Formats: sequence, structure tokens, C-alpha cells
Amino acid sequence: MLEKTPEITAGDTTHPFDRATQVTNVDGRLRGAASEDYFAFVGPFGGATAATLLRAIMEHPECAGDPLSVTVNLCAPVARGVFDLDVRLIKATRSTQHWMVELSQDDGVAAFATAVFAARRPSWSHQQAKFPGAPPFDQVKPLPDSGIANWVKQYQFRFVEGAPGYNAAPLDVPASAYSKMWLSDATPRRIDFLSLLSMSDTFFARIFHARGTIVPIGTVSLTTAFHTDAADLAAEDITAVLGVADAKIFHKSFSDQVGELWSPGGRLLATTSQVVYFKA
Amino acid sequence: MLEKTPEITAGDTTHPFDRATQVTNVDGRLRGAASEDYFAFVGPFGGATAATLLRAIMEHPECAGDPLSVTVNLCAPVARGVFDLDVRLIKATRSTQHWMVELSQDDGVAAFATAVFAARRPSWSHQQAKFPGAPPFDQVKPLPDSGIANWVKQYQFRFVEGAPGYNAAPLDVPASAYSKMWLSDATPRRIDFLSLLSMSDTFFARIFHARGTIVPIGTVSLTTAFHTDAADLAAEDITAVLGVADAKIFHKSFSDQVGELWSPGGRLLATTSQVVYFKA
Repeated sequence: MLEKTPEITAGDTTHPFDRATQVTNVDGRLRGAASEDYFAFVGPFGGATAATLLRAIMEHPECAGDPLSVTVNLCAPVARGVFDLDVRLIKATRSTQHWMVELSQDDGVAAFATAVFAARRPSWSHQQAKFPGAPPFDQVKPLPDSGIANWVKQYQFRFVEGAPGYNAAPLDVPASAYSKMWLSDATPRRIDFLSLLSMSDTFFARIFHARGTIVPIGTVSLTTAFHTDAADLAAEDITAVLGVADAKIFHKSFSDQVGELWSPGGRLLATTSQVVYFKA
Repeated sequence: MLEKTPEITAGDTTHPFDRATQVTNVDGRLRGAASEDYFAFVGPFGGATAATLLRAIMEHPECAGDPLSVTVNLCAPVARGVFDLDVRLIKATRSTQHWMVELSQDDGVAAFATAVFAARRPSWSHQQAKFPGAPPFDQVKPLPDSGIANWVKQYQFRFVEGAPGYNAAPLDVPASAYSKMWLSDATPRRIDFLSLLSMSDTFFARIFHARGTIVPIGTVSLTTAFHTDAADLAAEDITAVLGVADAKIFHKSFSDQVGELWSPGGRLLATTSQVVYFKA
């Protein structure tokens, strides 16, 4: 393509995640680019795409409040190179905003997101869910670099339960799809809404765990709800989260996945669910 | 408004749910109407609105496959009377379709939904989640009509655990937000995607259970994933489901809610999550 693309210049100290998810205004149109650093198999890692979409909304001059819930639909692989981002405020009320953003390339829309924002007010507060618990981050060994996909190198995975151990042949009896892991950016970066959204897509496909082998998969739709506002996240000031993920059912080429992202201090920061295509 | 609205004619045997969620083509524009039968406090029950949106997609001539995942954002109360429905196919690939539908009235968009459809192919199948179990439907007493809201009369709730027992004052110590219930249309109706989507919004707000009292609430965003296709549902041929619901956190005026809808035979039909505004 002939359009200007964001380039890495010498001495650029921007974090790879911020570089991968940056949104630029080129001649009045919003643009992003699929980052090689976060590439998966047939397109960029869905979490990076999701964060780019959310960033496009958050950087909009009319955006107010904090994201409450974001749904990202991944329609087709995002191709290498730049893409257009069309952001639209669907509805604003006194206390909430509903946004939509579409990511387009030559073949039309490849991904889109809808998001609810709100100014969260003080209220009665109660965390019913229990912190899953884990040995401290530093005491859990990081997963060695498997070299499978670029995006995996951008994170540090420290598995506490359900570490990946995949074989060539599927298991005779399905194993548990549950796993628990510490998760941080490979280059530490303070956790914010963008990284939480991206991290909510970092759980390896549950079917890999259940079947014990790698099969073709693809996230189709991802919904993440945030249970903190910007002030809470600033107070946490953390670079790692404890993530747990599980699946309830694999049926007729699609499975669910549910996950939680916790602060090391035991606060539930985000919950997530997704629908995943699989071939098995 | 001057536009034609769907009217109940004498001898109409259409099920109330189908009447409430009907979509009509008036002079080339899709229309629906907020049904008094399914009214809540300040607008129609969100489940009925959600089902109307899904029906608008499913009745579109280009719609193919079965719904996989639907996200419904309720932006503002839907007012009494008719509304416009704008349906758009955002992206179609060989195997999936991504749709959006917006519900508008005089004040702009009041609700919208995005949905993924797919032709589900045979695959490896595994239900990891365990059926919650319950005494048979007939052996559980239905909740008496509380007269609180019209929509509640349209369903039969047979609570197995966590039946509502609300008081004037909140509890000193939060109670469990978990509940389990049999659920059917008051006038039996075979379970389909539309009723499953609506039923995924029938769980009473979790904060009522946790606080033991009724407070102002409103669903903001609802995501339901279907784990069956039309053939599976036809084979089940059921009019009731077992529903379980819970919440993980209540914080700064919003809570989550997660739920599952099971067939009496023990198949997981749908999973759902939502973000709920509350004032407490």
C-alpha cells in the first residue's frame, strides 16, 4: 500500500505494545497497522487487534469515562500492513457512552468492536469471587520461548496450573481445560485497560489443553468486562496479573472460553468470555 | 406516532413472546413495537428487546447459519410504541456472518446488537461442565406471581436454590448471589434461539440476592453464546431450561452476572454474561 505507516525510528523507546496498538490520524482518517511483533499464524494476535480498537475509541476527543465492557468480533484475518479505523459514538446518555469501531482493509471489515463507557460512581462494593491464589510471581518459572508465534514472545507466561504440554496425537480421554498463570508483558508495562483487554485473549486455546494437541483455531468473538476504573488501576500500579481460564463445552466446531484477570493483591480486574472456532 | 403498529386481533393464537418480538416490514422499513406484555419498570424487559433484535437478523433474507454469539447493548430505555430496526451485514466469509442491528426511536438509538452466525460442522465434541442437577421441573413449585412487572408474568420461575426473598432493608452481611431455577414460558413454547436469548436475561439482578433487597438496576450489555445449533434444539424439543446464575463482583455502581441455560437432559445450551448498573 502507498499510505504512510508507523515506522520504528532509531532510539524509539515506545513499548512494543503501544507501538503495535498505536492509532494515527493520517489526513483526517484514523489508521493503524498490523504489527509484526504481535503476529500470530494468519494475522496479528487478536488481543493486539482488540487493544488497537479500544485505543481508537479512548483517544477519540468525545470519549468520556472508563470502559465497562468491550466486545470484539474478529471477522477475517487482518492482513499485513495498514488498516482504516472508523469510530462512531452510537449513543451517549448522561452517564454512559456506547461506541463502535470498525477495522477495514481492502477486503472490507476484518474486525470490529462495540464498547460501553461509564463514569463509575462510588457505591456499595463486594467481591464475591475468591482470589484463586498462587505462589508469588517471582517464584514461578516463566514458560520457555517456544518460538511458535511472535506475539507469544511479547508476554511472560508463568503457569501455576494447566501448563501447556501438547503432543502430536490427541489424548484418548479429554484433560481439564483449566489453567492458571501469572502473565506480564515481556518488557514490563503498567497494567491498563488496553493491556487487560489484550491479556484477556492470551489464554492458549482451551482445546489445546482438553485434547492435549494443537489444532487450527480462531477467536470469533471476545467480550471483556472491566471491574475497575482508571483510578483503581492507577492505585494498583502493577505489571502482572493472575489469569485463570476454562471452557465448558466443545461442540460442532466451536467452544467457549471463560477467564478472569486478577491483581496480585487479590482484586478481580476483568472477566472475559469468548467463542472460538476449532477444527478437530 | 402515526405509523402502523402490530395489533392483536381477535382469535390471534400467536404466542405472546412471538407477538412481543415480532418484526414487520412497513413500507420497506423494519419495525417492531415495545410490548406491554413484556414491560418492566421504565421500558420493555431487555430479554424481549434482545430477542426482537435477533429476530430482525434471523428473518433477513441473507441470513445463513445459526447464531453463535450475540451481544446486546441497552443504551437507553425503549419507549412505548414502535421503533425502527436497521439491520446490516457487516461481513460475510465462507463460513461465518457478522451482523449488526440498531433499534431507534425519536431519541436516537436505544439498543443495538451484534451477532455472529455460522454453519456449524460436525466435530469432536466434549462437554466439560457438569450439569448442575435439580429435582424434576414438575416437582419444584413455581414462584407465585409477585405482580412486580408484566414481563415476570410471562415466565414460570421454579427456584431450586437462591429463591428471591427480599426485604426492605439490606442485609448486614452479603448473601450468595447464586441461584438455580427451572424456567419456562408461562404459556409453554418450544425453546429456540430467540427464547434462549431472552431467557438469558431473566435472572433477577444478582444484587437483589447479595443485598437481600431491591435496588434500582439496569442491564447495560449482555452477551450470550449458543452451544447448540438449530438441529440440536429441534432434537431436544423442550419447553423448559435449568438456569444457574451468579455474580463475581459489585463495584463502583456496576456488577457482572454470569449464567448458564441447560436442557433438562443435561446439555449446556447457552452461556451468558452481562454488565449491570446498580444504585446502592
